[in-house]
Amino acid sequence: MKKIVTIGEVMLRLSPPGNQRFFQTHSFDVEFGGSEANVGAALAYWGMHVAHITAFPDHEIGWAAAGQLRKNGIDTRFIPHIPGRMGVYYLEQGAMQRSSQVIYDRAGSAFANFDGSKLDWDSILDGVDWVHWSGITPALSQHCADLTLTALKKANEKGIKVSGDLNYRSNLWQFGKAPHEIMPALMELTHVIIAGTRDFKQCLNEDYKSFTEVRNMAFDRYPKLEYIVKTDRISHSSSNNTISASLYSKKKTYSSRSYELTHIVDRVGTGDAFGGGLIYGLLHLGPKDAIEFAMAAGAIKHSVPGDILLCSLQEVQELAAGEGGGKIKR
Amino acid sequence: MKKIVTIGEVMLRLSPPGNQRFFQTHSFDVEFGGSEANVGAALAYWGMHVAHITAFPDHEIGWAAAGQLRKNGIDTRFIPHIPGRMGVYYLEQGAMQRSSQVIYDRAGSAFANFDGSKLDWDSILDGVDWVHWSGITPALSQHCADLTLTALKKANEKGIKVSGDLNYRSNLWQFGKAPHEIMPALMELTHVIIAGTRDFKQCLNEDYKSFTEVRNMAFDRYPKLEYIVKTDRISHSSSNNTISASLYSKKKTYSSRSYELTHIVDRVGTGDAFGGGLIYGLLHLGPKDAIEFAMAAGAIKHSVPGDILLCSLQEVQELAAGEGGGKIKR
Amino acid sequence: MKKIVTIGEVMLRLSPPGNQRFFQTHSFDVEFGGSEANVGAALAYWGMHVAHITAFPDHEIGWAAAGQLRKNGIDTRFIPHIPGRMGVYYLEQGAMQRSSQVIYDRAGSAFANFDGSKLDWDSILDGVDWVHWSGITPALSQHCADLTLTALKKANEKGIKVSGDLNYRSNLWQFGKAPHEIMPALMELTHVIIAGTRDFKQCLNEDYKSFTEVRNMAFDRYPKLEYIVKTDRISHSSSNNTISASLYSKKKTYSSRSYELTHIVDRVGTGDAFGGGLIYGLLHLGPKDAIEFAMAAGAIKHSVPGDILLCSLQEVQELAAGEGGGKIKR
Amino acid sequence: MKKIVTIGEVMLRLSPPGNQRFFQTHSFDVEFGGSEANVGAALAYWGMHVAHITAFPDHEIGWAAAGQLRKNGIDTRFIPHIPGRMGVYYLEQGAMQRSSQVIYDRAGSAFANFDGSKLDWDSILDGVDWVHWSGITPALSQHCADLTLTALKKANEKGIKVSGDLNYRSNLWQFGKAPHEIMPALMELTHVIIAGTRDFKQCLNEDYKSFTEVRNMAFDRYPKLEYIVKTDRISHSSSNNTISASLYSKKKTYSSRSYELTHIVDRVGTGDAFGGGLIYGLLHLGPKDAIEFAMAAGAIKHSVPGDILLCSLQEVQELAAGEGGGKIKR
Amino acid sequence: MKKIVTIGEVMLRLSPPGNQRFFQTHSFDVEFGGSEANVGAALAYWGMHVAHITAFPDHEIGWAAAGQLRKNGIDTRFIPHIPGRMGVYYLEQGAMQRSSQVIYDRAGSAFANFDGSKLDWDSILDGVDWVHWSGITPALSQHCADLTLTALKKANEKGIKVSGDLNYRSNLWQFGKAPHEIMPALMELTHVIIAGTRDFKQCLNEDYKSFTEVRNMAFDRYPKLEYIVKTDRISHSSSNNTISASLYSKKKTYSSRSYELTHIVDRVGTGDAFGGGLIYGLLHLGPKDAIEFAMAAGAIKHSVPGDILLCSLQEVQELAAGEGGGKIKR
Amino acid sequence: MKKIVTIGEVMLRLSPPGNQRFFQTHSFDVEFGGSEANVGAALAYWGMHVAHITAFPDHEIGWAAAGQLRKNGIDTRFIPHIPGRMGVYYLEQGAMQRSSQVIYDRAGSAFANFDGSKLDWDSILDGVDWVHWSGITPALSQHCADLTLTALKKANEKGIKVSGDLNYRSNLWQFGKAPHEIMPALMELTHVIIAGTRDFKQCLNEDYKSFTEVRNMAFDRYPKLEYIVKTDRISHSSSNNTISASLYSKKKTYSSRSYELTHIVDRVGTGDAFGGGLIYGLLHLGPKDAIEFAMAAGAIKHSVPGDILLCSLQEVQELAAGEGGGKIKR
Ligand SMILES: [Ca+2]
Ligand SMILES: [Ca+2]
Ligand SMILES: [Ca+2]
Ligand SMILES: [Ca+2]
Ligand SMILES: [Ca+2]
Ligand SMILES: [Ca+2]
Ligand SMILES: [Ca+2]
Ligand SMILES: [Ca+2]
Ligand SMILES: [Ca+2]
Ligand SMILES: [Ca+2]
Ligand SMILES: [Ca+2]
Ligand SMILES: [Ca+2]
Ligand code: NI
Ligand code: NI
Ligand code: NI
Ligand code: NI
Ligand code: NI
Ligand code: NI
Ligand code: NI
Ligand code: NI
Ligand code: NI
Ligand code: NI
Ligand code: NI
Ligand code: NI
Ligand code: NI
Ligand code: NI
Ligand code: NI
Ligand code: NI
Ligand code: NI
Ligand code: NI
Repeated sequence: MKKIVTIGEVMLRLSPPGNQRFFQTHSFDVEFGGSEANVGAALAYWGMHVAHITAFPDHEIGWAAAGQLRKNGIDTRFIPHIPGRMGVYYLEQGAMQRSSQVIYDRAGSAFANFDGSKLDWDSILDGVDWVHWSGITPALSQHCADLTLTALKKANEKGIKVSGDLNYRSNLWQFGKAPHEIMPALMELTHVIIAGTRDFKQCLNEDYKSFTEVRNMAFDRYPKLEYIVKTDRISHSSSNNTISASLYSKKKTYSSRSYELTHIVDRVGTGDAFGGGLIYGLLHLGPKDAIEFAMAAGAIKHSVPGDILLCSLQEVQELAAGEGGGKIKR
Repeated sequence: MKKIVTIGEVMLRLSPPGNQRFFQTHSFDVEFGGSEANVGAALAYWGMHVAHITAFPDHEIGWAAAGQLRKNGIDTRFIPHIPGRMGVYYLEQGAMQRSSQVIYDRAGSAFANFDGSKLDWDSILDGVDWVHWSGITPALSQHCADLTLTALKKANEKGIKVSGDLNYRSNLWQFGKAPHEIMPALMELTHVIIAGTRDFKQCLNEDYKSFTEVRNMAFDRYPKLEYIVKTDRISHSSSNNTISASLYSKKKTYSSRSYELTHIVDRVGTGDAFGGGLIYGLLHLGPKDAIEFAMAAGAIKHSVPGDILLCSLQEVQELAAGEGGGKIKR
Repeated sequence: MKKIVTIGEVMLRLSPPGNQRFFQTHSFDVEFGGSEANVGAALAYWGMHVAHITAFPDHEIGWAAAGQLRKNGIDTRFIPHIPGRMGVYYLEQGAMQRSSQVIYDRAGSAFANFDGSKLDWDSILDGVDWVHWSGITPALSQHCADLTLTALKKANEKGIKVSGDLNYRSNLWQFGKAPHEIMPALMELTHVIIAGTRDFKQCLNEDYKSFTEVRNMAFDRYPKLEYIVKTDRISHSSSNNTISASLYSKKKTYSSRSYELTHIVDRVGTGDAFGGGLIYGLLHLGPKDAIEFAMAAGAIKHSVPGDILLCSLQEVQELAAGEGGGKIKR
Repeated sequence: MKKIVTIGEVMLRLSPPGNQRFFQTHSFDVEFGGSEANVGAALAYWGMHVAHITAFPDHEIGWAAAGQLRKNGIDTRFIPHIPGRMGVYYLEQGAMQRSSQVIYDRAGSAFANFDGSKLDWDSILDGVDWVHWSGITPALSQHCADLTLTALKKANEKGIKVSGDLNYRSNLWQFGKAPHEIMPALMELTHVIIAGTRDFKQCLNEDYKSFTEVRNMAFDRYPKLEYIVKTDRISHSSSNNTISASLYSKKKTYSSRSYELTHIVDRVGTGDAFGGGLIYGLLHLGPKDAIEFAMAAGAIKHSVPGDILLCSLQEVQELAAGEGGGKIKR
Repeated sequence: MKKIVTIGEVMLRLSPPGNQRFFQTHSFDVEFGGSEANVGAALAYWGMHVAHITAFPDHEIGWAAAGQLRKNGIDTRFIPHIPGRMGVYYLEQGAMQRSSQVIYDRAGSAFANFDGSKLDWDSILDGVDWVHWSGITPALSQHCADLTLTALKKANEKGIKVSGDLNYRSNLWQFGKAPHEIMPALMELTHVIIAGTRDFKQCLNEDYKSFTEVRNMAFDRYPKLEYIVKTDRISHSSSNNTISASLYSKKKTYSSRSYELTHIVDRVGTGDAFGGGLIYGLLHLGPKDAIEFAMAAGAIKHSVPGDILLCSLQEVQELAAGEGGGKIKR
Repeated sequence: MKKIVTIGEVMLRLSPPGNQRFFQTHSFDVEFGGSEANVGAALAYWGMHVAHITAFPDHEIGWAAAGQLRKNGIDTRFIPHIPGRMGVYYLEQGAMQRSSQVIYDRAGSAFANFDGSKLDWDSILDGVDWVHWSGITPALSQHCADLTLTALKKANEKGIKVSGDLNYRSNLWQFGKAPHEIMPALMELTHVIIAGTRDFKQCLNEDYKSFTEVRNMAFDRYPKLEYIVKTDRISHSSSNNTISASLYSKKKTYSSRSYELTHIVDRVGTGDAFGGGLIYGLLHLGPKDAIEFAMAAGAIKHSVPGDILLCSLQEVQELAAGEGGGKIKR
C-alpha cells in the first residue's frame, strides 16, 4: 500500500443546516476540513497509508479535530497539541443564483503559530511515496512557509514525489512576505503542480497571456516538473456547474471527460477530492486514466456533504469508466 | 436613509422540514410572515428605516412575532398587543411535479379584529417616503379595510408615495363586502400598482381582454397612477420556474431579463421580495434599473428558506447586473 | 369501496438524513416499508379498504411497525406478533452521479420464519376484490413461498383478481429453491403481471430475445393472464430520471405519457406507487386511463420522502390529466 | 377483549423542543391529543378495542390526526372529516420553578361546530363495555353538550358503564350556558366520576366545605354512581411532584401508594393515563388493585413525551406491584 | 418606562445540543450572549427601554448578532459594524458530577479593538435612568477600559445611577494592565456594586479576611456607593445548586430567600439575570423586595436555555412572592 | 505509555432521541459500542495505547464502526472486514420509574461467525501490558470462545496481566455450550476478575451463600487471581442510583466512596467505564486509589451520552479526589 504525507491547517467548519443563511440559522453543522487534509482523507478512504502534519490546540475541540482525522483513516501520530486557538471557517451553502459564502476566522491559530522546526522528518517520511502541499500553508506565517520548505527539501533528498496545489488566496499572505518571495523555491521542489494561469501569475508576480505560455515557462524553469494539472469549471449557478480537467506533460496533453453537475450538494472540497484522485491516479495508473480518475473523484465529491470525499475506489472507478446512471445499488 | 411604512397581517408559518408532507411530519419549522411585512423586511435588510403596522396577540407567541420583525430590522413601536388569536398558515413545500400547499387558519385573528381607528398616523408617517399596502388587508374585515383607507388618505395628504400589490385571493373577502366595493377607492390613492390582468378583473368586477386594455383603463381612470408592474411566471414544476417582469408607465414599458430558476428552495415570499426590490428601485434608480433590481430580488429569494428575502444589497445588485455564476465567495 | 389484500414483509428502514453517507451519519431516519405493503398503503390513502398479511416481532419495534401500517390506513388485524427479529434495510440516498445504496439485513426475520399455515384465509378474503403479491415473498423461505401459493389458490377459488410484481432480486432465493421451481405456479394464478424481460427470464430460467417474445409466451402459457405491465426508466443520475410505462393485453398496448423527473427526492417505493396506481386504475378506469393513472402515481412518488406514496387521489388525477405545473395551492 | 368508546376533541399539540420557551423556539414538535382520546389510547395500547368519537377537518392535517389515532390503536371509523379548522394547543414545557404554559387556540374547531345528531349510536355502542366522557366536551358548544347527553342516554339504555372526568376548565363554557345548566344531567348518567371538590363545586354551582361533604352529596343525589375517584398532587416544582389517589365507594375508601416523581419528562396527559388505568382496573381487577393500577399508570406517564401513555400492561403492573427500580431491561 | 444603557461585548455562543461533549458533537446550538447585554435583555423583556453599547464585525454573523439583540428588545442604533472578528465562546453543558466547560476564543474581536472615543454619549445617555457595566469590559483592552471610564464619567455628570458587576476573570487582563490599575477609578463612579470578597480582593489587589471587612472598606472608600450585592451559591453538582443573595447598604442587610435548584437546565447567564432583576428592583421596589425580585430572576433563569432570562415580569414576581409550584398554566 | 488489548464485539447502537419510546420515535441516534471496546476507549482517551480485536462487516456501516473506534483513539489495524451482518442493539433510555430497554439483534453477526484462528497474536501482543476480555465474548459462539481462550493463553505465556469482566447474560449462550463448560478455563488465566456473586454462580454452575464464600473459593481455586472487584448499585429509579465498589485481594478489602447519582443521562457503559478506570488504576496507582479512580470513572460516565466515557484523566482524578461540585470551568 502506498504511503502519503500531507501538510496543512485543519479548521473547524461551521455551516448552517440545509440552505439557511447565517442571518437566520440557530445551529451550525460541525465538520473539520482543510485543503491538504481533505486530499489525504480521500486517499485514506481508498486504503492508502496517509499521515498528516499540522498542529492542534490542546483542548477538547482540538482533540475532536484529531479524532475526526483518525476516523477518516489518517495517521495523527505526528500532530502536536499546543496552546492556541482553533482556526474556524464559517460556510454558508449557496443555492441557485445565490453564491456560497465563506467567512474565514483563522488568524492566530495554533498551526499558524506552530514552530515546526523540531518535527522529525526522517520518521515522518520513512517509507513514504508522495508528499502533498498547497499554497495556503506558506501564506499563513513565516513558520508555516519554513515548515513547507523543509518538508519539500527532505522529500526531494529522499526521492519522494511531491505535488503542490498552488491555490492562490488573496486574503491570506498577511505576514509580511509576498507570494513571489516564497513560492518559487517551493515550486522548484515540486513534481506535479495543480494550478491555472491566475495561480501562476500571482505566485510568480509575472504576467502571462495564455496557459500555453505558462506551461512553456514552467517546464523550462522547473526541471523537476513532470506534470501541470488544470481544472476548468463553468458555474451556471451554485447548483449547476460544468467541469473538466487536463493533465499536461512537457509534450502531451491528456483531457478528462466533461461532467454536467446539476443538483450540487456541497461544492467545498471538490478540488481537494480531485487532488486526491490525481495522486492516486499517478501512483497507480497511466496519465490518461489518472486524469480521468481524478476528475471523476472531483465530480462525485459534489454529492457528498462536508469537506471530504467519502466515496469508495469502486464508486470513483465506475464513474471514471462512464457509469453514472444513479441506479439503486442493492 | 429612506423611510417606509408597510401595513398588514403577520402570521405564524408552520411547515414540515424538508420535503415532508403534512401527513408524515413530526415537527414544524416556525417562521413568521405576511406579504406586506415581507416587503418591509427586504427593505430593512438593505438599511432602510421601515415601520410595520399590524396587531399581535398579547401572549408569548405574539411577542415572538414582534421579536422576529425586530430581528429583521423592522420598527415595531406602533404594533399593539391585544386579545385574540395568532393567525396561522400551514405550508407544505412542494417538489418536482407535486405542488406546494397552504392551509390558511387566519380567521378571527387579533389583526382581523383590530380596530385601528386610534392609530396615530401623524406619528407613524412622520418623515416617511413610501407606504406599501396589499389587497390582502382590505379583504380581511371592515376594520382592516377602513385602516387601509385611512392610511392611504393620510399618506396622500402628506405627499407620500403609495404602492399597492392587488394580490387577489378568492378565499378571503368573507366579511360581507365584494372587492369592487372596497378596492377602487384604495387604487385611486396608489401611485404604483403591482397586478396582473386577473387581479384587475377581480378587484374591479370588470372584464378585460388583454393586459393592454387593462393598462389603458388604469392610467385613464387613476390620475395619480405612475406605474403598473406585472410579473410573468411559467411553472414547469415546483422545483423549476421561469420568471420575468415589466414596469409600465403611461407611455413606456421596461422589461427585466428572464430568469431560469431551477433547484427552487422556497417559492413563498418571492413576490414580496420583488415588491421590496421595486420600492427600493423606484426610490434610488431609474425605471429600467428599478425593474431589473426588483426582478433580481424576486429571483434570488427562491434560494432563501422562509418568507423573507435575506440578501444584501450587493448580492441583489450583482445578480441584477448579470452576475449569477454561483462561485464561492471567500 | 373496493377491498384489497396485500401480502409481504415489512422492514425497518434506516436512512441517514439528507444526502449524508452511512460513513458520516450520526442518526437514522426511521420508516417502515416493504414492496407489497407500500402498494397497500397507496390504495388505503385513496380510501380503499386494505388489509395486509405479514408477521412482526413481539416487541415494541414490531408494535411500532404495525402502528405505522395502521396510521397509513391499513387493517392490521390479521398480523401476528411472534418471536423473531425485525428485518432491516439500510438506505443511503444517492444524489447526482452517486447511486443510492441499500444494505439488506433481513435474513432470519419473524416473517421469513413465519409458518402461515394457520392463517384463516376465508376471513381474510371475505368480500375482497383484489389480492397483490410480489416475487420477493416466495424468495424468502419455503414457508413464505407456501403462504403465497395458498393465498393465490384461495383467491382464485373465490374469483378474486390477483396481481403480482415479479420483482426478481438476485440476493434473495437463499433457502434452497431456484425461482423457476416456485414462480411458475404462482404466475399461473395471477391475472396482472408487472414485469420486464429480465424478470421473466430469471423467474422462468428461460431466455428471451425481446419483450414481444415474452409477451407472446406469457399470454400463451398463462390462460388467466389479462395484462402484462412494464415500466421503462432511464437513469441520467440519482437526481434525474425519465420514466414511462405500458400496459399489454393479449391484443393491445396502452402507453402512458413520459415524465422527465428532475430534483428527485426519494426514488424508493416508486414502483410500488405505480403498482398501487395500477390496481386502483384497473378497478375504476379503462386500460388507457389505468396506465396513465399508474404512471402518474409512480412519478409523483419521487417527490415524497419514505417508502409510501402519500398523495391524494386528486393530486394523482391532476398529474395524470397533464397538470403538473407546481403552482402553490392555497 | 373489552370494548370501550371515548368521546371528545383531539387537538394539534405544538410544543418547542426540550426546555425552550415559545419566544425562542424555531420549531414545534407535533403531537395530537385530547383528554378523552388520551384515555382511549392508553386502553388501546393494552389491547382493548377502543373507538373514539370526534370530528376532524377535511384536509391533510385532519387526516394526519386520524392517522395518529389509528397508529395508537384506536378505531377511527366513526369519525367524520368535515369543513372547519383544526383545534390547536401550544404547550411550553416548564422546568424547575418555571411552570408549563398552555395557549389554547381551539375556538371554532371542526368538532366544536360538529352537529353530531346523525351519529349512529347503535353501531357505535354495539358490544361496548364502557363509555368515557369528560367535562371538556359539553363546555365547547351546545352541539357538543347535546352529543354527550345523547351518548350517555344510549349507553345507559344498553346497560353500558359510563365514566366521566369532570375536569372543570374556567376558560371554556363560552357558548352561553353555565356548567350547572348542563353537567347535572350528565352526572346522573355516570357510574364512575373522576373529580375533586373544586370540580363538583363548579359543575354544580354549589359550595362544599370538604370532600366528605361532596362524597355524601354525590352518592345521595346520583343513585347510579358507584365510585368517585380523586387524585392528590403536590407540585414542588415543574420537575418534581408527589401524587397519590383514592377510590371512594358509598361505604369504602381505597387509597393508592404515593409516588415521589422527580425528573418529570411530560406532565401533560397524566390525568388521562390515570383515567385509562382506572377503566382498565375496574374492568379487570377489584377496587383496591384498580386504584393502584390507575395511579401507577398516571405516575409512569410522567416519563413519556407527548399526551399519550405508551407503556405496556406489564410495565404498569410491575410499577403497581412496587417494582420501580429503573434497572435496564435486556 | 425606565431607560437603561448596558455596555460590553456580545459573543457568539456555540454549544453541543443536550448533554453532549465537545468531542462527540456534530452540531452547535447558536446563541449570542455577553454578561452586560444579558442584563439588558432581561430588562427589555420586562418592557424597559434598553440600549446596548458594543461593536460587531461588518459581516453577516455580526448582523445576526445585532438582529438577535433587537429580537430581545434591545435598541442597537448605537452599535457600529466594523472590521474584525466575532468573539466566540464554546460552551459544553455539564451534568451531574461533570462540570460545564467554557472555551473562550474572544481575543482580537471587533469590540476588543474598538476605539470607542467617538461615541456620542450625550445622545446615548439622553433621558437614561441607569447605566450598567461589568469588570469584563475593562479587562479586554485599553480601548475598552477607556470606553468604560468615559461612560461612567458621563453618567455621573448627568446624575444617572451606575451599577457594576466586578466579575473578576483571571484569564482576561492580557493587555498589559493589572485590575487594580483600572478598576478603582470605575468603582468610584459606581452606585451599586455586585461582587463577593474574591472580586474585591482581585480588583483592588488587597487582602480581606471577611466580607464584613470588605463592606466596611468599600462604604468608607467610595462615598457614592449605595449598595453592595452578593450572591451565595453551593454547587452540589452541575444539576443541583442552592442559591441566595444579600443586599448591603451602609447600615442594613437585606437577604433573599434561598432556592433549592434541582434539574438545572442552563446555569449560564444566571448571574446576569440576577443583575437585571436587581436593577429592575432598585428602580421600582424597596431594597427588601428588590433583592427578593433579583434572586427570583436569577433562580428562574436556571430553567431557560441560552444566556438570556426570557421570563415575564409576572413569572418572576410570582416566584419572588413564594409561588413556585410548577403547576401548568392554561 | 501503557499498551492494552481489548477483545470483543462492537455493535451498532440505535436509540430514540431524548426520552422517546421506540413506539413513537422517527429517528435513531447512532452510536457504536460493546463492553470491551468501551473499556478500551476510556483508556485510549486517557492516552494509553489501545488495540481492539474484533471483526466487522465488509460494507460501509462496518467501515463506519471501525472509523468510530479510530476516532476514539483505538488502533484498528488488527480488525478484519469480512462478510456478515452488523450486530445491532436498540436502546430505549428510561426515565423516572420507567426502565431503560435493550433489544438485542446480534445473532449471526460478522464477529460471532469470525474464525479468529489465524490472528497473529505475537504481533497483537507485542509490548502489551494488559489484556481485557468479558464473559460476553465466549457466550457468542464456539469460535468466539476459542478466540478468547487463545488470547488468554498467549497473554499468560508472555507474562501480560489479564482482566475479565464475567458479565453473565442469560440471553446469550445459545450456541450449545453452558457457561461452566467454557468459563473456568478462562478464569484460570485471569488476574483481575470483575464480578458479583450471581456472576460466579452462573459461570461456575455452583451455589454460594455469600460473597465471602465466593471470594474464598476464588482465591483458593485460581492461584493467578490477584483481585476480585465488585460494584454495588441501588436503583432508586432510572434517573437516580447510588453506587460504590470494592476491590478484594486475598487478604484485604479496599472500598470506594459512595456516589449519589441524580439526573442520570446515560447509564449504559458505566460498568465499562469502571473497568477502564480499574485497569488504569491498577497500572498506575495503589489498590486504594485504583478502586477510587475506577468508581469515579464509573460515576461520571452516567453524565455522558453514548456507550463511551469521554472524560479526561483530570476530570476523573478530580472527582476521585472528592471534587464534584459542578462549577463552570472557564
Ligand atoms: Ca451543512
Ligand atoms: Ca456538513
Ligand atoms: Ca421548511
Ligand atoms: Ca422555514
Ligand atoms: Ca431520509
Ligand atoms: Ca425518511
Ligand atoms: Ca416537546
Ligand atoms: Ca412531544
Ligand atoms: Ca445547548
Ligand atoms: Ca442554546
Ligand atoms: Ca440517545
Ligand atoms: Ca447517543
Ligand atoms: Ni435561536
Ligand atoms: Ni434550532
Ligand atoms: Ni410523532
Ligand atoms: Ni421528531
Ligand atoms: Ni426533531
Ligand atoms: Ni437534524
Ligand atoms: Ni456521533
Ligand atoms: Ni447528530
Ligand atoms: Ni442530530
Ligand atoms: Ni433536534
Ligand atoms: Ni428562526
Ligand atoms: Ni431551526
Ligand atoms: Ni432545527
Ligand atoms: Ni459528523
Ligand atoms: Ni443534526
Ligand atoms: Ni415518521
Ligand atoms: Ni424528526
Ligand atoms: Ni430531528
